[in-house]
This record gives sequence, structure tokens and C-alpha cells, in this order.
Amino acid sequence: MEQEFATPLLENAVAEFAKLPGIGRKTALRLVLYSLKREPAEVEAFANAITKLRNEITYCRMCHNISETELCPICANPARDAATICVVENVRDVMSIENTHQFHGLYHVLGGLISPMDGIGPQDIELDSLVNRVKAGGIKEVILALAATMEGDTTNFYIFRRLAEHSGSTRISVLARGVSVGNEIEYTDELTLGRSIINRTPFTDTFQNTP
Amino acid sequence: MEQEFATPLLENAVAEFAKLPGIGRKTALRLVLYSLKREPAEVEAFANAITKLRNEITYCRMCHNISETELCPICANPARDAATICVVENVRDVMSIENTHQFHGLYHVLGGLISPMDGIGPQDIELDSLVNRVKAGGIKEVILALAATMEGDTTNFYIFRRLAEHSGSTRISVLARGVSVGNEIEYTDELTLGRSIINRTPFTDTFQNTP
Repeated sequence: MEQEFATPLLENAVAEFAKLPGIGRKTALRLVLYSLKREPAEVEAFANAITKLRNEITYCRMCHNISETELCPICANPARDAATICVVENVRDVMSIENTHQFHGLYHVLGGLISPMDGIGPQDIELDSLVNRVKAGGIKEVILALAATMEGDTTNFYIFRRLAEHSGSTRISVLARGVSVGNEIEYTDELTLGRSIINRTPFTDTFQNTP
Repeated sequence: MEQEFATPLLENAVAEFAKLPGIGRKTALRLVLYSLKREPAEVEAFANAITKLRNEITYCRMCHNISETELCPICANPARDAATICVVENVRDVMSIENTHQFHGLYHVLGGLISPMDGIGPQDIELDSLVNRVKAGGIKEVILALAATMEGDTTNFYIFRRLAEHSGSTRISVLARGVSVGNEIEYTDELTLGRSIINRTPFTDTFQNTP
């Protein structure tokens, strides 16, 4: 931006927007100029929503999901099956699984995956608290719902090993891997296709349980 | 979003982000979750930058460019050539032209283009104030730097007609249209190529004035 033009207020607002992920200077400028066209009250509402969220939201002490209360609405709901824990990487995964309406247990949000490449070790994610939940007893099943990537698998193996010592009668399962619903066989990668043959399911299991 | 999950604070912040142009609910959610990971002071700085900009910025009374003062820094700069006015659609165009470092006159920001299709008429853009600036005298040249689109051309013709009554010795020019620098001839559209032949320039004009 030409020095003479750059009013500090504009420059500052553009710089702040450009700090957000996936937003470059051009997009930031577009958003800032849009904000200039809005009513001051609208811009105020936008700014308040973000700061209020940041200042007032907290994390559930049980599952580490974001929450406005000490215990999140899912953990606090007596109708949910407290004997089943679904382990996920982040808050977005909780939302995705909730949207399927197929899971009625509780969650455990790790806040990341083990990734030696990125210097993220087991101590950097919420693993001890998961082990403690299982140690406390009463957990029938732990479902590992992590990404089907190297980091996801590394984390899966690590959690499996850590829980094995304490799990007792707790079942540990992972999400099924197979052909995506709606996908053609010829476009499914070999690894997935291979797994889907090895882990084939009885016909009636699949076609009676579809959502 | 699953009803049980949607904390009002989160829902509200996502809705506010999603009001911005080009930002859907998925991107809004990503930006909101990113904001949750930032320090509260950072989020505060972001929110303040936007509201401060909206509340404190104003428009230059002369050229309608955004400004923090009654007269924008360009109009207030005695080193700029006050006898040349470059007419542009919006603030971004001012920035683009300033970035070329090839123009040293003043601007006039219309705030839009005449577009009968969108119901935008001459009275909806800053045209009268442009005519008044020319009427006031002392303007040697008005450069119309509007988009090479139907709306830009309509506005060009309208301004030309309006100014013709008052312009006297004022020259009215438009941006050159031709092959973009760096573009291959074979990929240049016919209309542009045709214009660039009709409006061909002396060799030395082009190759001595390149920035």
C-alpha cells in the first residue's frame, strides 16, 4: 500500500484481519472495506460477539469440549450413555459426529494428534485425563475416531497401549474404514478398498443400520 | 449444528463471521475456533481495530476517498497536481493506482458505477460533486479510470456528457485499453487486440515511459 494513502486506522484493521488463517492482505482489505459500509452498530455486534466468545467460553473439565459451563451440555446430559467415550482430535470433530445423530455417548477432545514431525508428543494433548476417565471405571467402550492419517494412526496406537494397562473390560474400537457412501469402487484408493474387503460386514448389518 | 452442542456464544460468533462477504458457515466456524485459541488480548486487538476504524474513519469532503481527516492526505498534499483529477469507482482503485506510482494528481471516488440493471442511477453516485469541482475551474484534465465493462462505459459516457457543458478547456481522457503487459498476443481477446491496433502508440512513447 502506498505510504501516503495508508491511514493508520485502515492499515491496522487490514493487518488484524490478515492475521486470521486463510485470509491474505487482499481479502483482508475487502473485508475491511465491507465493514466500512456497514452500520456502526453492526460492526459493534460483530466485534462484541468475538470478544465475548473469547472471554466467556471455557473448556469442559471432563471432555475438554468448548463450553459455557464447567461441564459441557453433552457431559451434563443424563440421557447420554456415560459408559461410551468417543475420542476425537478437536471440537469440529465433535460437531461432525453430533451431526450424524448416530452417537449417543460422551466425547473426549484430545486437542491435537501426536506428530513427531511437528514436535507434538503425548504430553501435549489431553491424554492423561482420558486414561484417568477410564481408570475411574464404568467405561464399557472407547471409540477412537481419529483421522485416517499417519498422525491419527500413531495416536491410535499410543492410546491403545496406554489404555490396555487400565482398560480391564473396556472395549477399544476404531471407526470403520471402507468405501465412502456415494463413491464409485473404481475411484476408491487401493488401501481403502483392500481394508473394506478384509473388514467386510454381513449384508444385513450394513443395510439395516443405515441412517 | 446439533442443537445440544450449539452454545449461544459460539453460534452467535459464527453467525457474525458468516455475515462477511465470501465467508460461509464452515469458514466462519474455522475462524471462530482459531479465535478461541488466540490470547484474549489478541482477540481484543482485532475487535478494537475494526470498531475503531468504523467509528473514526470518515470520507474526504473533496474526493470522497476514505480519510481520518476532513481532507484526505492526497487532497491535502500540496505536492500533488491539483489540476488533474482521476475519476475512479472505489477506494480500492485509488490504492491500485497509487501503487503504480504513475499518477500524481488528485482523485474523485464515485462510490459506484451507473448500472440500470442494478437500479443504480447517476444520482446514486458522487457525480454532482465532480461536476462542481470542474465548474469551480482550474482543472486541466479529468482522467476517467473506470472498469472496461458495460457499467464502466455507461458511466464514462454519462460523465463525458455532463462535463462537456462545463469543461471549457478541460481535457477528458480515459485509460488506454490494449494488450496487458506480460500477456501473449494469441490469448488476448479480439476486442482488446482490435483496440490496441487502432490506438497503437509511437514505439518510443511505450518503451521510454515504462515504469
